Amino acid sequence: MGASILSDLGTEILIPVCAVIGIAFSLLQWVLVSKVKLSPGRDPGSPRNNGAGGKNDCADYLIEEEEGLNDHNVVLKCAEIQSAISEGATSFLFTEYQYVGIFMVAFAILIFVFLGSVEGFSTKSQPCTYDQSKICKPALATAAFSTISFLLGAVTSVVSGFLGMKIATYANARTTLEARKGVGKAFITAFRSGAVMGFLLAANGLLVLYIAINLFKIYYGDDWGGLFEAITGYGLGGSSMALFGRVGGGIYTKAADVGADLVGKVERNIPEDDPRNPAVIADNVGDNVGDIAGMGSDLFGSYAESSCAALVVASISSFGINHEFTPMLYPLIISSVGIIVCLITTLFATDFFEIKAVKEIEPSLKRQLIISTVLMTIGIGVVSWVALPSSFTIFNFGDQKVVKNWQLFLCVAVGLWAGLIIGFVTEYYTSNAYRYLALMMLFIFLVSSSILIDFNTSCALSCSPVQDVADSCRTGAATNVIFGLALGYKSCIIPIFAIAVSIFVSFSFAAMYGIAVAALGMLSTIATGLAIDAYGPISDNAGGIAEMAGMSHRIRERTDALDAAGNTTAAIGKGFAIGSAALVSLALFGAFVSRAAISTVDVLTPKVFIGLLVGAMLPYWFSAMTMKSVGSAALKMVEEVRRQFNTIPGLMEGTAKPDYATCVKISTDASIKEMIPPGALVMLTPLVVGIFFGVETLSGVLAGSLVSGVQIAISASNTGGAWDNAKKYIEAGASEHAKTLGPKGSDPHKAAVIGDTIGDPLKDTSGPSLNILIKLMAVESLVFAPFFATHGGLLFKIF
Amino acid sequence: MGASILSDLGTEILIPVCAVIGIAFSLLQWVLVSKVKLSPGRDPGSPRNNGAGGKNDCADYLIEEEEGLNDHNVVLKCAEIQSAISEGATSFLFTEYQYVGIFMVAFAILIFVFLGSVEGFSTKSQPCTYDQSKICKPALATAAFSTISFLLGAVTSVVSGFLGMKIATYANARTTLEARKGVGKAFITAFRSGAVMGFLLAANGLLVLYIAINLFKIYYGDDWGGLFEAITGYGLGGSSMALFGRVGGGIYTKAADVGADLVGKVERNIPEDDPRNPAVIADNVGDNVGDIAGMGSDLFGSYAESSCAALVVASISSFGINHEFTPMLYPLIISSVGIIVCLITTLFATDFFEIKAVKEIEPSLKRQLIISTVLMTIGIGVVSWVALPSSFTIFNFGDQKVVKNWQLFLCVAVGLWAGLIIGFVTEYYTSNAYRYLALMMLFIFLVSSSILIDFNTSCALSCSPVQDVADSCRTGAATNVIFGLALGYKSCIIPIFAIAVSIFVSFSFAAMYGIAVAALGMLSTIATGLAIDAYGPISDNAGGIAEMAGMSHRIRERTDALDAAGNTTAAIGKGFAIGSAALVSLALFGAFVSRAAISTVDVLTPKVFIGLLVGAMLPYWFSAMTMKSVGSAALKMVEEVRRQFNTIPGLMEGTAKPDYATCVKISTDASIKEMIPPGALVMLTPLVVGIFFGVETLSGVLAGSLVSGVQIAISASNTGGAWDNAKKYIEAGASEHAKTLGPKGSDPHKAAVIGDTIGDPLKDTSGPSLNILIKLMAVESLVFAPFFATHGGLLFKIF
Repeated sequence: MGASILSDLGTEILIPVCAVIGIAFSLLQWVLVSKVKLSPGRDPGSPRNNGAGGKNDCADYLIEEEEGLNDHNVVLKCAEIQSAISEGATSFLFTEYQYVGIFMVAFAILIFVFLGSVEGFSTKSQPCTYDQSKICKPALATAAFSTISFLLGAVTSVVSGFLGMKIATYANARTTLEARKGVGKAFITAFRSGAVMGFLLAANGLLVLYIAINLFKIYYGDDWGGLFEAITGYGLGGSSMALFGRVGGGIYTKAADVGADLVGKVERNIPEDDPRNPAVIADNVGDNVGDIAGMGSDLFGSYAESSCAALVVASISSFGINHEFTPMLYPLIISSVGIIVCLITTLFATDFFEIKAVKEIEPSLKRQLIISTVLMTIGIGVVSWVALPSSFTIFNFGDQKVVKNWQLFLCVAVGLWAGLIIGFVTEYYTSNAYRYLALMMLFIFLVSSSILIDFNTSCALSCSPVQDVADSCRTGAATNVIFGLALGYKSCIIPIFAIAVSIFVSFSFAAMYGIAVAALGMLSTIATGLAIDAYGPISDNAGGIAEMAGMSHRIRERTDALDAAGNTTAAIGKGFAIGSAALVSLALFGAFVSRAAISTVDVLTPKVFIGLLVGAMLPYWFSAMTMKSVGSAALKMVEEVRRQFNTIPGLMEGTAKPDYATCVKISTDASIKEMIPPGALVMLTPLVVGIFFGVETLSGVLAGSLVSGVQIAISASNTGGAWDNAKKYIEAGASEHAKTLGPKGSDPHKAAVIGDTIGDPLKDTSGPSLNILIKLMAVESLVFAPFFATHGGLLFKIF
Repeated sequence: MGASILSDLGTEILIPVCAVIGIAFSLLQWVLVSKVKLSPGRDPGSPRNNGAGGKNDCADYLIEEEEGLNDHNVVLKCAEIQSAISEGATSFLFTEYQYVGIFMVAFAILIFVFLGSVEGFSTKSQPCTYDQSKICKPALATAAFSTISFLLGAVTSVVSGFLGMKIATYANARTTLEARKGVGKAFITAFRSGAVMGFLLAANGLLVLYIAINLFKIYYGDDWGGLFEAITGYGLGGSSMALFGRVGGGIYTKAADVGADLVGKVERNIPEDDPRNPAVIADNVGDNVGDIAGMGSDLFGSYAESSCAALVVASISSFGINHEFTPMLYPLIISSVGIIVCLITTLFATDFFEIKAVKEIEPSLKRQLIISTVLMTIGIGVVSWVALPSSFTIFNFGDQKVVKNWQLFLCVAVGLWAGLIIGFVTEYYTSNAYRYLALMMLFIFLVSSSILIDFNTSCALSCSPVQDVADSCRTGAATNVIFGLALGYKSCIIPIFAIAVSIFVSFSFAAMYGIAVAALGMLSTIATGLAIDAYGPISDNAGGIAEMAGMSHRIRERTDALDAAGNTTAAIGKGFAIGSAALVSLALFGAFVSRAAISTVDVLTPKVFIGLLVGAMLPYWFSAMTMKSVGSAALKMVEEVRRQFNTIPGLMEGTAKPDYATCVKISTDASIKEMIPPGALVMLTPLVVGIFFGVETLSGVLAGSLVSGVQIAISASNTGGAWDNAKKYIEAGASEHAKTLGPKGSDPHKAAVIGDTIGDPLKDTSGPSLNILIKLMAVESLVFAPFFATHGGLLFKIF
């Protein structure tokens, strides 16, 4: 067995230091972004005389002279639009947080009451759950600390989402302005802003968790089982907040987007993001509250949950029993090293290489994934060597399992590399830009039988899947939708095999602890993942601002190119989120089963099987609600936009300004109202099932929703991403094949717009919310496990 | 315990007598249909002087004189079209059966070799599987008899599908001709033809199974375990054939349908089924080979499998051990009584009531469901009382469970009534005709929380779901698709609860035997189910023939009304097929687990969990393949149809005839080629998983594909049905609301056509094939269970 090489003191220093480095790096990136000035020089003719602190900016401007570069009005206009978007987003988030805040407080009370009632609110210490010979803290303490960590998780999630939104709305107009100087400058601005968000979230999440553990330890002392059981509330709080953020933000953004497109692009034939469209501000606000704030909360939630899952399993393993501080905090050390790795990786995009042409954008983003994965593999190796004893025992449903440190290294690494594979497959299925690497093709062929995955396409053998979907637009919207749906379904195959292999390997080596650290491995490069994910909506907004500010066609082309790459990275981000959610949920599920003291979850018992069946149905129920919500809200938006076009004289001619505020209000009202039912479905299901049907049925529900939700989430995200990029492929007309389908306004293009609109709620509302559904139900079950084990299964007790 | 009231001799007489009555009734209906003459009278002016044997027909004609009623040319034209459709369908089925035949023979050899190898092809008797103290027949005998029953099942399935097609192509033109006399006459003709198919299939399936059991018994004698293990091959054969029938037929029909619509309706603005469209014959042939022959094979497969599942479980329970013939054949007696009950039920549609108006069609079909269910409940009660001992023991994974006869009655009844609920919910979500019964609404509200199923629609509170989808066409195809997908997802909720309740109740009372008889209960009214299901495509074809023969607008309106009701009944039929498939698969799964001698299927073991995850992915993989196939085949069809319109002079003007044969050939070639990969995926997965990963992983795969496949199958069928009927709702323009959306050719109607086209492969290719996927993998696993148990799990044995 033996002790770890890294001393406890070393661990106590390493984790906060890494977190602080992450925050400092994030602030540095912010400073670099802020050098792009939104306030124009007082005298455009005299470059050195502009706003305070901007000494070199105008010199830069002069180096690459372009049309409208120093146009005073354009910069003013950008600043104005940016402030409108920022205000809209801030005001929506405040409204959302108010409503969700009430719900959170109510739920916090519920947690306290339910968990407190496990031992009848007794303040006396009790025998420990896993070792009856020892004395542990009372259930009331767990109730109190779970409630506190729940609220802490919710607040951290709010802060993460809010900060992300602030950064994105700060960066969007700056990216637009930089696009005047070339695609490379714009890319770096957008990417740096993404990095601000990525590092801030990763470091913040780590730091809060670390501080909470240390504070809780003052009370809990050596009762690590109790301590980490209470800490699980942190994950629940983070995910609950993320659920509402994703669903509310997703409905907001897609109601505005679909509504704006249906009237603007389809009926009035005006371009996307045209300032005459009354819903255009709401649309751009939506990108920031849905894709940025929602996604920030979501990945923070995943991170918090996978840490909690690993910690809670570790606490009842040999680390916890022997009170070994460093191996116990192995999950957090992995995350700490991840921050440093991502920091180095970021430099490759911002400093070591420079983007000079549009076609370099996607490879550069892809390089980020590869570099971070390779470096992180080394990082994990080092951490596993220094922070773990050479062998230790892991709790495995009542048994103990001996694990070597190299085995745990493999668990983390398999998760990390599975993430990369999922990312690449997602890119393959959603990118319009490139014909795929022979390497990747070979891999796909090896993994799955070449006969069964039918690559034969009607377009040509050399077509990428997105080009194939674009090609199907020739025969109209119907074939586009059929091909797009088929693409989404097909895109599940390899990610599912990757997840299955990770699960098998990590479970074989280290049971549920292996799965938890595999999830952490996938999320260890979260800072990079978030950076490239946030980059997408920022570029999207930048394009919108360019259009609204009336900037030239060339600028818009550049932002469009950034945006197309952003669609792919957004899909990759969703792929990571889903893959990690699957592993996290399974780890949480395992922890729940241990905590609820059931030894097997046998599919052949009716209690479990009906749970499995109903659980597999929940993602459909949830998707039905969220898609219907987007549809209904979009219809309201369409009516309002039509009304404004019909009643405001001079709107189409551009002489009158539309009433942006009413559209913002429609999106806000709809999303606040419509996020309640799906949110309630997810939050209440584990409670209802646990209380009335008991832990066996709840286990079935968790397993069912997990295996079914993963598939819908992957296929929905990829279908939507592919449709969006098929449309962009036709619009860009960069190849001979694309030119035969275009230009904008042609019949194939119209068919592609329909596909894009259908994909909007799939990829940005229902799809990405589903991974929260599966994680949240699992973590909620874990938190309430003591209550269900004591008081659950009422219905079966009665009959 | 005690014996059953019904003597063994009684049973031996009852079953074949019921089957013969069913066949006789079916022939009677055929005779009645055949009274509608397709050969016109020699002198149209002299009605009494027409073709031989048609004495009363022309008298009927005269009673309700209508335009073109005795038009010599119209009748000739109908006969001509009918013969073209019939020839096309026959020729396709022969081609299909040739290819599938080779596959079947190869698979039969595989069965023999694999099962024979279990005991090294030894011809010596061996100790029994479940009772080592007794001596049973050798594994080689099981191999031989399994192979024979596999081939028998395949042949019966072929005969079922082929006969169904023959009847449907015989009836379609006759329905058209009857439509001249009124909607009631046309309805009765279509319904009678459906009944011919329903009774023939139900009786044929029962009779073949009964004869096979009696013949096998000559060799097996008292070794009932071995006998019924061998009989399971019958289910496998039936389902394998059904898979290819459904997939091949589904691709055929939808390639033609989508291709015909995309050029004809969308590009050339000619009506559906216009004779100028070169793909129109292929489209009408498709209805018969896909919806009729495929569906006939499918439901026959379900019936065969549920009987086999029940029999194999019963054979190792007390009936089997004590060699009680009557209770052993309880499943077959239920089916026998079902034929009689359906016979009485049919009279309510054809004789006791008469349809006089369009709006009576749907209630009349719905009445069929209710009457058959109520009567069958009584029938089950009687059978359970006379054919079962008052109490008996059931095999339950190693244990024995005591069951009372009234408990088994409840198992069958809960399956039967769950089928009715699924049927009603399907009708609710796919029917455009009616605002729903307050009773049903109340039920839905009780079952599922009224907050969470959001009935609030943008249309109005009183809108049915289909009207709501139709309403969303106002804003274009995108919202139509979003609402349609949401509807499909939502339509899973109640059926899944109904299935879950059935599983729970039947399992609690009688373990896996309970589930098997619940499935049989749901299928006990199969004759009626098939009749109303086959009625749909026949009406669809009748409409096509009316259009092609140039009959009046009024006739076409009548056939359209029949067809709209047919869409709903087709969706109901699919609902039954899916619900019963879920129960059958679970029963087969249970039998497989018993046979493979594994006592638990624990989700928390990695072998099972990865199986669950990958199993849940398989329906997506399968759907991706089938949808892509339809899309690609449709694109080829579009090219050919466009080519003909562009190169054949006078085609649009109606002066030249299109080249129907080439389109038929495209559909045929595409479906033959494209049915192989999805077929191979389903047939090979259990073998690959069982051989390389072993029975635990295979259990996971079966459970995963079951819980995931059911959801996709339900949502795909209902989404497609709803889109089709939303289009028909707009076209019919029967209400004020519908009129605001129409007429044909309006923008909302165009959007509805796009939805309908997308729904085609969902509802007729991938959706209905999925229930075969889940059943087939389960029955195949059961057949190969002895082999897997002996030689399986190679990969884990090596490592």
